[in-house]
Amino acid sequence: MLNQFYIDNIINTALAEDINYIDVTTDNLIPDDHTSEAYFIAKDSGVLCGIDVAARVFDLAGGNVEKEILLHDGAEVKKGDYIAFFRGSTKTLLKGERTALNLIQHMSGIATATNKCVKLVEGTRASIADTRKTLPGLRALQKYAVTVGGGKNHRFNLSDGAMLKDNHIDAYGSITGAVTALRKKAGHMLKIEVEVRNLEELEEALANKCEVIMLDNMSDEEMKKAVEITDGRALLEASGNVTLENIRQKALTGVDIISLGALTHSVQCFDISMRIKSNK
Amino acid sequence: MLNQFYIDNIINTALAEDINYIDVTTDNLIPDDHTSEAYFIAKDSGVLCGIDVAARVFDLAGGNVEKEILLHDGAEVKKGDYIAFFRGSTKTLLKGERTALNLIQHMSGIATATNKCVKLVEGTRASIADTRKTLPGLRALQKYAVTVGGGKNHRFNLSDGAMLKDNHIDAYGSITGAVTALRKKAGHMLKIEVEVRNLEELEEALANKCEVIMLDNMSDEEMKKAVEITDGRALLEASGNVTLENIRQKALTGVDIISLGALTHSVQCFDISMRIKSNK
Amino acid sequence: MLNQFYIDNIINTALAEDINYIDVTTDNLIPDDHTSEAYFIAKDSGVLCGIDVAARVFDLAGGNVEKEILLHDGAEVKKGDYIAFFRGSTKTLLKGERTALNLIQHMSGIATATNKCVKLVEGTRASIADTRKTLPGLRALQKYAVTVGGGKNHRFNLSDGAMLKDNHIDAYGSITGAVTALRKKAGHMLKIEVEVRNLEELEEALANKCEVIMLDNMSDEEMKKAVEITDGRALLEASGNVTLENIRQKALTGVDIISLGALTHSVQCFDISMRIKSNK
Amino acid sequence: MLNQFYIDNIINTALAEDINYIDVTTDNLIPDDHTSEAYFIAKDSGVLCGIDVAARVFDLAGGNVEKEILLHDGAEVKKGDYIAFFRGSTKTLLKGERTALNLIQHMSGIATATNKCVKLVEGTRASIADTRKTLPGLRALQKYAVTVGGGKNHRFNLSDGAMLKDNHIDAYGSITGAVTALRKKAGHMLKIEVEVRNLEELEEALANKCEVIMLDNMSDEEMKKAVEITDGRALLEASGNVTLENIRQKALTGVDIISLGALTHSVQCFDISMRIKSNK
Amino acid sequence: MLNQFYIDNIINTALAEDINYIDVTTDNLIPDDHTSEAYFIAKDSGVLCGIDVAARVFDLAGGNVEKEILLHDGAEVKKGDYIAFFRGSTKTLLKGERTALNLIQHMSGIATATNKCVKLVEGTRASIADTRKTLPGLRALQKYAVTVGGGKNHRFNLSDGAMLKDNHIDAYGSITGAVTALRKKAGHMLKIEVEVRNLEELEEALANKCEVIMLDNMSDEEMKKAVEITDGRALLEASGNVTLENIRQKALTGVDIISLGALTHSVQCFDISMRIKSNK
Amino acid sequence: MLNQFYIDNIINTALAEDINYIDVTTDNLIPDDHTSEAYFIAKDSGVLCGIDVAARVFDLAGGNVEKEILLHDGAEVKKGDYIAFFRGSTKTLLKGERTALNLIQHMSGIATATNKCVKLVEGTRASIADTRKTLPGLRALQKYAVTVGGGKNHRFNLSDGAMLKDNHIDAYGSITGAVTALRKKAGHMLKIEVEVRNLEELEEALANKCEVIMLDNMSDEEMKKAVEITDGRALLEASGNVTLENIRQKALTGVDIISLGALTHSVQCFDISMRIKSNK
Repeated sequence: MLNQFYIDNIINTALAEDINYIDVTTDNLIPDDHTSEAYFIAKDSGVLCGIDVAARVFDLAGGNVEKEILLHDGAEVKKGDYIAFFRGSTKTLLKGERTALNLIQHMSGIATATNKCVKLVEGTRASIADTRKTLPGLRALQKYAVTVGGGKNHRFNLSDGAMLKDNHIDAYGSITGAVTALRKKAGHMLKIEVEVRNLEELEEALANKCEVIMLDNMSDEEMKKAVEITDGRALLEASGNVTLENIRQKALTGVDIISLGALTHSVQCFDISMRIKSNK
Repeated sequence: MLNQFYIDNIINTALAEDINYIDVTTDNLIPDDHTSEAYFIAKDSGVLCGIDVAARVFDLAGGNVEKEILLHDGAEVKKGDYIAFFRGSTKTLLKGERTALNLIQHMSGIATATNKCVKLVEGTRASIADTRKTLPGLRALQKYAVTVGGGKNHRFNLSDGAMLKDNHIDAYGSITGAVTALRKKAGHMLKIEVEVRNLEELEEALANKCEVIMLDNMSDEEMKKAVEITDGRALLEASGNVTLENIRQKALTGVDIISLGALTHSVQCFDISMRIKSNK
Repeated sequence: MLNQFYIDNIINTALAEDINYIDVTTDNLIPDDHTSEAYFIAKDSGVLCGIDVAARVFDLAGGNVEKEILLHDGAEVKKGDYIAFFRGSTKTLLKGERTALNLIQHMSGIATATNKCVKLVEGTRASIADTRKTLPGLRALQKYAVTVGGGKNHRFNLSDGAMLKDNHIDAYGSITGAVTALRKKAGHMLKIEVEVRNLEELEEALANKCEVIMLDNMSDEEMKKAVEITDGRALLEASGNVTLENIRQKALTGVDIISLGALTHSVQCFDISMRIKSNK
Repeated sequence: MLNQFYIDNIINTALAEDINYIDVTTDNLIPDDHTSEAYFIAKDSGVLCGIDVAARVFDLAGGNVEKEILLHDGAEVKKGDYIAFFRGSTKTLLKGERTALNLIQHMSGIATATNKCVKLVEGTRASIADTRKTLPGLRALQKYAVTVGGGKNHRFNLSDGAMLKDNHIDAYGSITGAVTALRKKAGHMLKIEVEVRNLEELEEALANKCEVIMLDNMSDEEMKKAVEITDGRALLEASGNVTLENIRQKALTGVDIISLGALTHSVQCFDISMRIKSNK
Repeated sequence: MLNQFYIDNIINTALAEDINYIDVTTDNLIPDDHTSEAYFIAKDSGVLCGIDVAARVFDLAGGNVEKEILLHDGAEVKKGDYIAFFRGSTKTLLKGERTALNLIQHMSGIATATNKCVKLVEGTRASIADTRKTLPGLRALQKYAVTVGGGKNHRFNLSDGAMLKDNHIDAYGSITGAVTALRKKAGHMLKIEVEVRNLEELEEALANKCEVIMLDNMSDEEMKKAVEITDGRALLEASGNVTLENIRQKALTGVDIISLGALTHSVQCFDISMRIKSNK
Repeated sequence: MLNQFYIDNIINTALAEDINYIDVTTDNLIPDDHTSEAYFIAKDSGVLCGIDVAARVFDLAGGNVEKEILLHDGAEVKKGDYIAFFRGSTKTLLKGERTALNLIQHMSGIATATNKCVKLVEGTRASIADTRKTLPGLRALQKYAVTVGGGKNHRFNLSDGAMLKDNHIDAYGSITGAVTALRKKAGHMLKIEVEVRNLEELEEALANKCEVIMLDNMSDEEMKKAVEITDGRALLEASGNVTLENIRQKALTGVDIISLGALTHSVQCFDISMRIKSNK
């Protein structure tokens, strides 16, 4: 789904980092025509993500590897599940292994964490969204993984959505002033989100027909009131101090979106192993 | 310490991801000559890392910002500590904020986690090392953060150290065969590390004068025996299933190095905030 | 306003194209310490755009040039107006001249054409918008020039706004089907625009609360009816066969946006000359 | 004919601009295995250019599309002519459409405009040439399109031809001085063109055996005299204020080359549509 | 063996340099479907290197060429030996010729020179090593060619091996001081080499268990003593003023490595011709 | 004189190759504020080239170094001459040293070799020219060095000069056929060079008014005849088997240009040392 050129760039960067000139061990020891069979196996339970990216690594790390992909992005895997088989050049398999695993483990880690949140809010109005708290160069991969886990993407970057924070508002004296100024300049496909700290600001944002309103670190009580007041006139986003423990409570307040930076800034990698057996 | 060209590339990539064309909010609302004062403040306790990288972001995101850096890489910060002040163009500060924080939070997260491990093994022989389980494009930043936390760098890539695993050994029938073949080809600056699964393999590796030997998922008892047998003839690296709970036990076996993938593949970001106050 | 890194990339690409190795004429004839005074002068009347980009060219083409910028982006210039003075290295001035002019003439051409449209619809509801019909590698520069001319930016790319055309709708059998499917997946900051060919489709799009509706090649009569029916429930965009002659008529139908591909795909360059006088 | 690597770079840049992360509409609505048939159809009459570049877009935008190209670069197309069929992945077709059309429309616009000039001077000595007034990053594509329209390429860049203008000449006091100095340094494959403002300067340029002489904004009368005086000793290039109305008059003066910046700096795009029909 | 992405980058850079826009001769004269047979023939005797890189050039310069490679990297070729046949597009063959030859001639030149040294020291302890005295952008190609000639690679870069020179030592007052400081920080896979100027320094380096010691411009007598003193406790590298005339004498002193900058900084290209015969 | 962006790219590539992540020796041992004085000194006699490029390395390798350049490109240096002083950060000096020397030694080697040839043909008609036999990525640097040595540049690439060889001619049956075909398509700034193998072909080339004619591996006798026959109607280039021994003889035949591939494909580096003294 992601642009192939973008993915190839990431993989080539990763291979350059990991191999640099040559793999002194593999290139010096393994004959060119030596072949093996390798497979990926889940060491934990969660949501798989990045299998196509990982498989692509072997094309770019030397090729001559056939792929049999058993489980696809979005699959709920259990510990011990076979994910894919790779058969062919042992050199390619050994040289691509680390890069392939680094990618799939990171992406599956994000999908799995997102999915946990999605399940915790099931039955409520709330959807789970990511943030711009991503790692340099990896935003597209990370945001894709969030969707595979069932989450939704907040804006990709500062160009494709407006978000008014205190500092922007201060520059214009009021929410009304800032929103009015922005509407004069921004294109018609742009939504405006305003960050509000209390119900008074909420009212002002609603009066200005902001499409989305972020409730910044509000208590559950306040959020419930905000939902009532808003009554469907805007989407409400809860943000700040969200944990696995309190996420359902927050969802039950009736907000439309709960966004979590941790989905992408504090990723626990999902354990997947590659095992390899030489063909004698 | 890292190559400036490398760091600038990462920052420019991150800014391109985050800003893309323009910051529709800031560029449309904040006048060019509007100035503010911003500061970074620690929201947790740990080891600071990445302050120069974060500060550099403001140069590349528009410039016209003066920096006063109070705490440097390696500093042990406490919750509430002021880290740096940035004074100047509000546009630059707002446009660079997210990228700067994403970098310093990730790097400080690594330094902090590494430092915890380093302290847990204090007084033992063991040093803490990273692995090749890093994120695409970020290896140098991540490995630098490990050293700031007091850890040491394992090989940077497959060119600068040999590591013989089962598959390499299988191709030659024995450790002796593989090591001999590799020595014939490898340069004189290259160390050879062999992964061994039992004490028999350890003996064979030692007989071949391998400089480093990895004890793969051995019990503490086995590791102690390995230390005795080795008796300083090679460096011993413990790897696999290392946790904050068992790391000291492992260190007490007498191994020289304990390596942890989690330092770089499962980073918990370290919370740092940027607060900004407009100059009226 | 645009990302400096992006602009520098475009300029460096242009200089590499234009100079390649060396300027065989200038580099072989003009001494390093020869200085001149140059100025930009308008040869036509219109809206200036790209003066900072053009001035930046001299920094990257050799430097040692002082700039005095008299007129800024957005200025309405008349034939004969002085735009800027550049004083310093004759080599730099001669080597950068063509690239600087190519950029400012193209950008001013877009701003001027946009501004003509903006003035023609003055007093109506309609704003003028660009499209994705831009030139490879130049989209950001072109879209920036549209805003300098008083126009607004439609979506920057396929990531930051959804636009349902026949083909997307066909895949789901109906507008309702497609919009419903998309809402389930798209993030909350994304607006959905639907292209409709008749008033029936308009009704369906409105029933689905699409934020923007494109009236594809409708007659002015139909558009008026569409405006009535819509009654503010969505933004209406007129598109197709817009000319300087008919644009005001279209605007008077009451649509919110008129978009024109020609603003960026058929640019008439705006004539600006650089004159240069050697300092003896 | 153009370097594939160069073309792929332009296409990948354009796709990155147009798609960025994902196509939120297409990627979320169209199944991976959905197929369609698309075709390009001319909406105007002119000279086709860029069909291979446009077809290449679909390879890089996702692939899985078969191409049947009916008309090739240089073909004189009429309104309604079918140009090519593309059959395969609907996703690829929709994601590549805009980029493919932007390229072929721009290139065909240049070829068509050039061809009009070429036809207007038919039967005279004059050939039609482009200039360095091209758009950043697109020079090779643009200059190629000029040749497809029957024009010829002036120098590609400042390295591959010398052009002495006033400023170069002033630095040496005279045409003779400057040409002599340049000949001492320039390689033997380099032609020298001198810009002259009157017949006296023409004589001096001829005396110095300059290979090409540019008659800068001369009247038709003067140009006729220049042709007589030159009598085949150098090539004469007419430049400045060339329009479709006066171009034949200028050609009839007997000059060898007429160069026009407008061929590349003020391109009217040539209208080509892509129509697409889903396979149910 | 080298990373394909790295090689393709070098080839694409070289083709961009050599072709730039088009091959004005070939592209204007040779029909697209014109085919030829070409072959590479050795014009001298030596060690072949770079045949795969050279063959790859034709893929990237236009493709449609079939390859029959008769001799592979490492082959000892004699004047008149056929190396490879290339059959297909004449355009591709002519456009790729120069780039392909430039690469294979340079690489074979290095392999041949290295091999001469290797043969001169046969029967001694000494191996032949390269240095960091390589050409910008070509280090990996050059170091690979050294290994093909039978030499070994010294460190690839400043990250993957420590080398203490006077300046580093001065900063710490003594070899002991510097080595101790470095050991505290460097990873366990890193070898330390110390440059010594006399036998006293050698003793100090040995006392500090440096893995490798460079004997800087020592006389053969001194080197012999150094070998005796060292007695296998470290590897000894001879460096400086090595010529084909004295290399065997140096090797007979008993040193382990002789390194030569000239292998890569003063390459005599190895003469290989491409002959081409058109298919009528 | 060369494009700064091009030079910076080469230097950054070289530094990335040489430093990769960090300089493990220098970065771990030398304090940030440690300063030194370094100088470049010639170890041989010849023509200096590349001093600005070498000095630029220290800017990009860390900065904080002041430069005092005593001798400039083109200077005839003698063994022992001081070339430049660099004062400042010891870290920068040590990290940039190798890259700076690799560049200046290579460029000065080319300038020196070229200058030897230029002096050998002094007093004759012949100028010395380079070829397209250059190293990947370094063509501009190499061709610049040739001019510094007093040589002239042949065409830079296949776009900026036509050269008809056997294969091109065969495709058209005759020189006349090929030249006629090419003239119809090539721009007016392009010179045509034809490679001839005998005097008959020479006559045909002259009859077609080719601007330059290459005498391919002709004997001195034949070349003399060619000069007589040509009588100034075209430039004559001697190519093939040129050595320091026979170059003057070839020049005395009266040819205009002698071109040598060896100037750039078989460079003997020119020895320059950097010496460095720490400031205590």
